[in-house]
Amino acid sequence: MTVTAAVLDRLAELAQLGAWEGGIDRALFSAADRAARERFATWARDAGLALAQDRAGNTFARRAGTAGRGSILVGSHLDTVRTGGPYDGAYGVVAALGAIALLAERGIATVHAIEAVAWAGEEGSRFPLGCLGSGAFAGLNDQGAIDALRDADGTTFAAARAGATGLLPDLALRSRETPAAYLELHVEQGPVLERAGARLGVVTAIAGQARHAITVAGESGHAGTVPMTQRRDALVAAAEIVAALDAAVRELGDAVLTVGKLDVEPNQTNVIPARVTFRTDARSVDDSRIEALTARLRALCGEAERRRGVSVRVEALERRAAVAMDPALSACVRAAVVSLEPNAPDLPSGAGHDAMCVATIAPAAMIFVPSIGGQSHVAAERTAPADLELGVEALARALVEVDRALR
Amino acid sequence: MTVTAAVLDRLAELAQLGAWEGGIDRALFSAADRAARERFATWARDAGLALAQDRAGNTFARRAGTAGRGSILVGSHLDTVRTGGPYDGAYGVVAALGAIALLAERGIATVHAIEAVAWAGEEGSRFPLGCLGSGAFAGLNDQGAIDALRDADGTTFAAARAGATGLLPDLALRSRETPAAYLELHVEQGPVLERAGARLGVVTAIAGQARHAITVAGESGHAGTVPMTQRRDALVAAAEIVAALDAAVRELGDAVLTVGKLDVEPNQTNVIPARVTFRTDARSVDDSRIEALTARLRALCGEAERRRGVSVRVEALERRAAVAMDPALSACVRAAVVSLEPNAPDLPSGAGHDAMCVATIAPAAMIFVPSIGGQSHVAAERTAPADLELGVEALARALVEVDRALR
Repeated sequence: MTVTAAVLDRLAELAQLGAWEGGIDRALFSAADRAARERFATWARDAGLALAQDRAGNTFARRAGTAGRGSILVGSHLDTVRTGGPYDGAYGVVAALGAIALLAERGIATVHAIEAVAWAGEEGSRFPLGCLGSGAFAGLNDQGAIDALRDADGTTFAAARAGATGLLPDLALRSRETPAAYLELHVEQGPVLERAGARLGVVTAIAGQARHAITVAGESGHAGTVPMTQRRDALVAAAEIVAALDAAVRELGDAVLTVGKLDVEPNQTNVIPARVTFRTDARSVDDSRIEALTARLRALCGEAERRRGVSVRVEALERRAAVAMDPALSACVRAAVVSLEPNAPDLPSGAGHDAMCVATIAPAAMIFVPSIGGQSHVAAERTAPADLELGVEALARALVEVDRALR
Repeated sequence: MTVTAAVLDRLAELAQLGAWEGGIDRALFSAADRAARERFATWARDAGLALAQDRAGNTFARRAGTAGRGSILVGSHLDTVRTGGPYDGAYGVVAALGAIALLAERGIATVHAIEAVAWAGEEGSRFPLGCLGSGAFAGLNDQGAIDALRDADGTTFAAARAGATGLLPDLALRSRETPAAYLELHVEQGPVLERAGARLGVVTAIAGQARHAITVAGESGHAGTVPMTQRRDALVAAAEIVAALDAAVRELGDAVLTVGKLDVEPNQTNVIPARVTFRTDARSVDDSRIEALTARLRALCGEAERRRGVSVRVEALERRAAVAMDPALSACVRAAVVSLEPNAPDLPSGAGHDAMCVATIAPAAMIFVPSIGGQSHVAAERTAPADLELGVEALARALVEVDRALR
């Protein structure tokens, strides 16, 4: 079996861990997550790599370099959302081991150590913190604060880590040595590469994000007895805001805005809605566009108050700045990628990734492979096997380019 | 105690039956409903009235007239919605007995028998049929079909009627004799009288109604990774329809349209909505306006399909024609009403009432008293006690006017 075909086999093996009828549920420090980390360790040991882990739950597998330089980190995460698919995260981890295997098979030595990494808890599906492991590694989140986080059952992170499905036994604790560079290969999770007919893409930046919770309070009433002129209908006001936001983001360009969640109270056919709550999620690689959309949201809510007699509360939930990938590192990666896919586009990532944390302490770059139908965070998430194999080859070539460029 | 003060006492007594923290829940043939019908029977017996009931669960209390004419029926219903208030329905029943008591106190004999009626199951809150009792009385619903109706627990109407909280014991079965006229006194359930500063109003017609269920099917996707131009967002499409319908009904005038229920799937902040279902409820006393709004709804759904790439299904759920009150009978009622409230307006009823069924077999008219804040179908539903008392007086005077006019 070729090295890249073995990557597909390993992905199929991981896809069994945490599988249920809704997809793959492999939350951090669950039995399925522990089993996935054990496979990673077994595969790494079999390849002669040196294993280590840290207190955030990250697992590392190192191939030594020929000189005492910082390592080139390459990887992604093994945890999933509750209804996850087989490739989001897992692909980047298995492909990292695959790329190292390709270097070994070809007898290519690197100056830098190459270190495959499986980041812990990127999805935030168990403990309420996304990119938990890579954030801790980058020093963005304090380990003491992480240890005190609780899951929905009240179990702390520290207790879960110490439990039977926590850290792996007998692994060295890795110190927080700053890497020379970070590479991450990931499924796109969107439709752009597929629609462009490209099998690989190079990520320019990870979009910034702003989330808001909006509460529109109007006045309830009987659907038949209150004249239109005497109504303060919370749903009509909310609908106008939702429609106007869509128009605003389309006009602005280079940004997306989604109202994914909206709830009506009391939500009965014959009652005028008294209250509507909804959430906005705005993203762009250009933070000024996010600010413009936030300003537009606030203006539309003010207009609704004046025109519709409702009261509108806007609560900022999250604000994450856009993170650019390193231009020089991305140029190395692009050289490797275009040797395999001449039409590979540059594209932004609308989804968050561990690369966005590591980028705060080291140059970082990312490669995408297409997602069929753009599907993501669902059991049906798929990438064509040939594209998965091509990605591994691209990653191996990128490691060689980067190792050479950083000398 | 005056007769009208006794009406308030009796309403307070009924308000205990079925009371819970959410309001008053007095579903047809529940223990609370049975107790309410028993009070009605006791009060009627004490007043020397002749009791009867029918197989639909309607209860009648008759004061004989001086000539062998058809009776003038006067009443409303004793059942409530699950979160009902103290006056919706119950007021019209208790006021009917009160009006008869005023005639007796004043020594007024009538040519026609006056028959107070407590209609069964107007709200449709237990068995899936509104105006169940009055519809059966008017021959609109076949008793065999009604007997076969099942509640949420699977109990049939016939079984509930035969049970311990069903029909009252030892009451004569009333034959379906067509009445000479029907009067109903009811709380407005809307804000019109209160805002007009009028303590009584005369109903011109009961609005027709059309209900539709709309399903907008778009395409799900990650909120961060799908460009705006590649989206088929079901919520944005639905929001545009909801906002445009509101504009359309305001422009049309003399109609109301409500989207009271709207549900988003999968309803997650970071997922583009795949599917939105919502319901429209359009009402007008002018059926052509309801048809115009239905046509506009279908046109807007077609536009959404073309512009937004979604597919939209429109399902007609209910269509009830507007029912005009009898002009001659309403003129008699108006004469009585303006003797007490010179500013009493004519107004349509946006809510359905038993009068709309009885109107198909006999002249029917209705009087409204104000609802504080227009509140309806909630525990907080209230009418000022003085207005409740004034309504009883108006009903008694209306009975005298009608009895005279129909000679």
